[in-house]
Amino acid sequence: MKLAVYSMGGTIDKVYFDDLSNYSVGEPQVRAILTQAGVDFDFSVTEVARKDSLYVTKTEREELRWLIAADPCPHVLVTHGTDTMTETAAVLANVPGKTIVLTGAMSPARFASSDAAFNIGCAVGAVWSQPPGVYIAMSGRVFAAGAVRKNRERGRFEAMEPAREDK
Amino acid sequence: MKLAVYSMGGTIDKVYFDDLSNYSVGEPQVRAILTQAGVDFDFSVTEVARKDSLYVTKTEREELRWLIAADPCPHVLVTHGTDTMTETAAVLANVPGKTIVLTGAMSPARFASSDAAFNIGCAVGAVWSQPPGVYIAMSGRVFAAGAVRKNRERGRFEAMEPAREDK
Amino acid sequence: MKLAVYSMGGTIDKVYFDDLSNYSVGEPQVRAILTQAGVDFDFSVTEVARKDSLYVTKTEREELRWLIAADPCPHVLVTHGTDTMTETAAVLANVPGKTIVLTGAMSPARFASSDAAFNIGCAVGAVWSQPPGVYIAMSGRVFAAGAVRKNRERGRFEAMEPAREDK
Amino acid sequence: MKLAVYSMGGTIDKVYFDDLSNYSVGEPQVRAILTQAGVDFDFSVTEVARKDSLYVTKTEREELRWLIAADPCPHVLVTHGTDTMTETAAVLANVPGKTIVLTGAMSPARFASSDAAFNIGCAVGAVWSQPPGVYIAMSGRVFAAGAVRKNRERGRFEAMEPAREDK
Repeated sequence: MKLAVYSMGGTIDKVYFDDLSNYSVGEPQVRAILTQAGVDFDFSVTEVARKDSLYVTKTEREELRWLIAADPCPHVLVTHGTDTMTETAAVLANVPGKTIVLTGAMSPARFASSDAAFNIGCAVGAVWSQPPGVYIAMSGRVFAAGAVRKNRERGRFEAMEPAREDK
Repeated sequence: MKLAVYSMGGTIDKVYFDDLSNYSVGEPQVRAILTQAGVDFDFSVTEVARKDSLYVTKTEREELRWLIAADPCPHVLVTHGTDTMTETAAVLANVPGKTIVLTGAMSPARFASSDAAFNIGCAVGAVWSQPPGVYIAMSGRVFAAGAVRKNRERGRFEAMEPAREDK
Repeated sequence: MKLAVYSMGGTIDKVYFDDLSNYSVGEPQVRAILTQAGVDFDFSVTEVARKDSLYVTKTEREELRWLIAADPCPHVLVTHGTDTMTETAAVLANVPGKTIVLTGAMSPARFASSDAAFNIGCAVGAVWSQPPGVYIAMSGRVFAAGAVRKNRERGRFEAMEPAREDK
Repeated sequence: MKLAVYSMGGTIDKVYFDDLSNYSVGEPQVRAILTQAGVDFDFSVTEVARKDSLYVTKTEREELRWLIAADPCPHVLVTHGTDTMTETAAVLANVPGKTIVLTGAMSPARFASSDAAFNIGCAVGAVWSQPPGVYIAMSGRVFAAGAVRKNRERGRFEAMEPAREDK
C-alpha cells in the first residue's frame, strides 16, 4: 500500500513572515497533514516546484508528467496551486494505468481554519476508490479532469458545462 | 448533489469541561468541518446518538439503518465512535442501492491536531467514488465493511485477514 | 533574563487517547507554548507533578515551595490545575523575594480553542511587571493570592470578597 | 473592571484570500482572542486603522492619541503592526494617567501557530500590573516605550542599548 505524492507548491504551502516580507511558498505541508492524520500506508513526497501556480511553467508540468510516468506506484497524489490546477491535470491526462488525483487549498494549511487537511483527505479517499485516470478533488467533490473549472468569484471548483455542439 | 450525514457520536465529537467534570460527547462536529472546508454540495445532518460507541445499542443501530433506508439520498456519510464502528457497518450491510461510508476520529475534532477533518474528507472522497455498498474510511484508507478491524494497540484500522477455510 | 517554570499538571496538559481510555495529564505544554510564542528570554521547566489538581498532595505542594525557594531565579511561573490552584498559592505565600505567578487553563492546550496560550502570556506579562509576591493570572486578570477563588459555575476566577470582620 | 482596546491593523489581523489576490488586513482579531480566552472583564474595541503599520500616518497616530486621551478608561491595549509600533508608542508617551500597552504579532492570528493569543495575554497581564505609562509587550517581555526596538533579522523585539553619552 503506497502513495506517491508530488508537490507543485501553491496556496496550501504558503507561509507568512512579517510586515515587510510577503507570503511565500514554503515546504510541502502534505507530509505533516498525512502524518497528523495517522495514515496507515507508506508515502513518498517529491517536490517538483515551490511557487504560486500562476508561475508554474510548461517545462515543470512536463517534468511532473515524466516523473509520474516513471514512478512504479499506481496511486498518485499531486498538491498544486488552485489557479492552474486544471492545466496541469490536462498535461497528465495521457499517463496510462494510474489513478492520479490533484488537490490543493483555498487557504494555507498553516491557517487554523484551512481547507487543506480536508482536501488532502478527500483526494486520498478518491485515489484509493477511482479507476485509473486523472481527477481533481476540490470543494469536497471529485471531478474528472477536463470537466472542472475554478470559479474565482465563488471561491469554488465546479463542473464545467460541456461545450455545446453547435451545428 | 446531496450528501446525507448521520451522526452517532463518538470521539470525534468529544468536548472537555474541567477538572471535576469529565469529557463528554457534544454536538456533531461534521457540520463545522464541512462548512470550514467550503464544500460545494448540499448536506443534511441527522443526529441519531450522542455517546461513546461502546454504549451504542442494537436499537440505535436498527434506527440508523431504518433512517438511511428511508432516505432518498443515495450518498450517505455516518460519523461514529471507533470502537464499534465495524459493528454498525455490519448492520448497514443490507441497505441496497446506496454508497454508505462510515468514519470517525481517534482524537476529538476540537483538538488542534485531530485527524477529524482529514477523515471526513477521506470519507467524502470515497462516497462520491465508490459503487453502492458499505465502507469504512479510517487511517487514510477505504475498507469494504466486513474486511476491516480496529487495532487498538496500533491505534489504526487495518484490513482483516480473511478467515481461513480449513478443511 | 530568565524565567523558572514549574509544572504541576492540570487541565492545561490534558491529552486524549481514545474511546476506552480517558483523558489523562501529559507532559507540560508550557514549553511548546513559550517556544511557539517566540519569547526572547531563557526559561527552565521543572515538572513536579503530572495530575489533576484535585489529587495534588500536601507533600507535593511542600516540594514545590522548597524547589522555588532554592531556585536563584527571582521570576517564577507555575502551571497548575484550576481546582486547587489557590491552595498551592497559599503554600507559596511565605517564599520571600520572588514574583511567583500561577496559571493554568479551563480547556486543554491541545484544543484548537484553548485559553492556554493566552493565560501563559498573561502570567508572563504579570511576572515581569509585579513586585515580589504570589499571584494568580486567570480569566484575563491578575489576582493577589489569597484574594481570589474559582467560581466553578461561571467557569471563571473572581475576586473574593474580603471576610467581614464583624464584632 | 474595563479595558479599552484600540486596533491599528497590522500582521495580527492579516487574512489570506487566494493565489491571485494577496493577503490584506482584516477585522480586529483581538475581540475573538479575548472572547476565546474567557476573560472576566468588560472591553470595548475601537478600530482606528486597518493597514500594514508601514502605512500608518502621522494623522492616524494623532487620532489614536486623541481618542485614548478622551477615553475615561485608565487601562488601554493597542494592537498594532510590528514595524512602526515603537513610533506610535512615542506619540502616546505624553498621555497622562493611563497604563497603555501596545502589542501585535509576528504571525497572523488566523495561523494555527501564531504568537497572537500569547501576546495579547502578555499585554493584558502587563496592563493590570504596571503603573501609568506606555509599554510594549512583545517577544514575551514588557518594555517601557522608548527603550525597545524591533530587530528584523532576529524577528524579535529587544531592549535598546541606551545612547552612549560620550564627552
